[in-house]
Amino acid sequence: MTTYIEKLESRYTAKKFTPNISIPSKTIEDIKRILQLSPSSTNSQPWHFVIATSEESKERIAESARGFYEFNAGKITDASAVVVLCTKSTVDTDYTDTVLLQEEKDGRFPNNEVKEMNRKGREFFMLKHRDTLNDAQHWMEKQTFIALGNLLVGAEHLGLQACPMEGFDYEYLTEALALDKKGFVPTVIVSLGYGADDDFNANTPKSRLPQQSIITEI
Amino acid sequence: MTTYIEKLESRYTAKKFTPNISIPSKTIEDIKRILQLSPSSTNSQPWHFVIATSEESKERIAESARGFYEFNAGKITDASAVVVLCTKSTVDTDYTDTVLLQEEKDGRFPNNEVKEMNRKGREFFMLKHRDTLNDAQHWMEKQTFIALGNLLVGAEHLGLQACPMEGFDYEYLTEALALDKKGFVPTVIVSLGYGADDDFNANTPKSRLPQQSIITEI
Repeated sequence: MTTYIEKLESRYTAKKFTPNISIPSKTIEDIKRILQLSPSSTNSQPWHFVIATSEESKERIAESARGFYEFNAGKITDASAVVVLCTKSTVDTDYTDTVLLQEEKDGRFPNNEVKEMNRKGREFFMLKHRDTLNDAQHWMEKQTFIALGNLLVGAEHLGLQACPMEGFDYEYLTEALALDKKGFVPTVIVSLGYGADDDFNANTPKSRLPQQSIITEI
Repeated sequence: MTTYIEKLESRYTAKKFTPNISIPSKTIEDIKRILQLSPSSTNSQPWHFVIATSEESKERIAESARGFYEFNAGKITDASAVVVLCTKSTVDTDYTDTVLLQEEKDGRFPNNEVKEMNRKGREFFMLKHRDTLNDAQHWMEKQTFIALGNLLVGAEHLGLQACPMEGFDYEYLTEALALDKKGFVPTVIVSLGYGADDDFNANTPKSRLPQQSIITEI
């Protein structure tokens, strides 16, 4: 059995995909489930995922890799599926209530007291970031980065390669996908598919800073 | 074989740990390896992980769960190990050079041209966040949130329960661990250990927003 750590070791960022291969629909469902199950602070889930599988949709996203970022366009058009990980652009109690009601529906509250504690906890953190720390957008994007990591590692478990990209025109993609009208900002694009045999990065050793420089045991 | 998705489904946030149980040293090594292998934008790895396993060290961290956050103290002292995920507080080319040299040492550059492209890519993104977008701290913390998600999911694969916490006194913990002198800020605390049998959260159903509200397929 391949361990979690072995999958972390074997995964790599695909820099070149084999074009014109579809991901089986069962695997697309697995991708959706992995995204949905991502953890987040206070289970806030302040995200939305746009998944493009048609040539036309991938082209539309690839057009945001323009100008300086043109080097990313091929990694989008040649991928089998492209996920745009988006983040909510506003915080309000209508939203925190939506999460609360979902948790109630899913049976997480044995009584009203627990429900109210849950409501207060989530509102406290989300409104603190909005009103006191003034970093709600960044805080919510941090949650989206949990989903990002989950997707990158999860892809390896599904037998897919992944390429995360922050190099694209955010304004262009926002308009192209009408994200602003839906209350989201694009945070990061992840291409998924099957790495090309001649991708230099497939056979280049993984590199990480040594444990003694990034870990202190006390 | 348990799949990746089944582990996402079975994991839960421990709200109560069984005290006085040590994590085997082999598993502590696995935790360190999982943290080290976390992906990050441009492989920037702008993080540091403080791992506390002694009673005294856990107590020191638990003291940051003070005042309003006292509800978190027991989740720290009763845990078997506590990881403080920290983020770099500055960005400079000395740091990007450190990553570059590590990648060179690990054999990622077949020639100088590739090395220079790598240098330019990482410097471009890190310095853009520092000098143009003025959000380098948040951007680096987003990377730490990738490591956070990796640790939360990885813990389940190691047979451990985890409890992530943002509810603590940041200034107090910064001083208590002398993080400022080392150039780091504390981002999130994760307690690791063995969930108590009477933890209400162990048997409460997981809740997530429905896929149709968080996913758009195009």
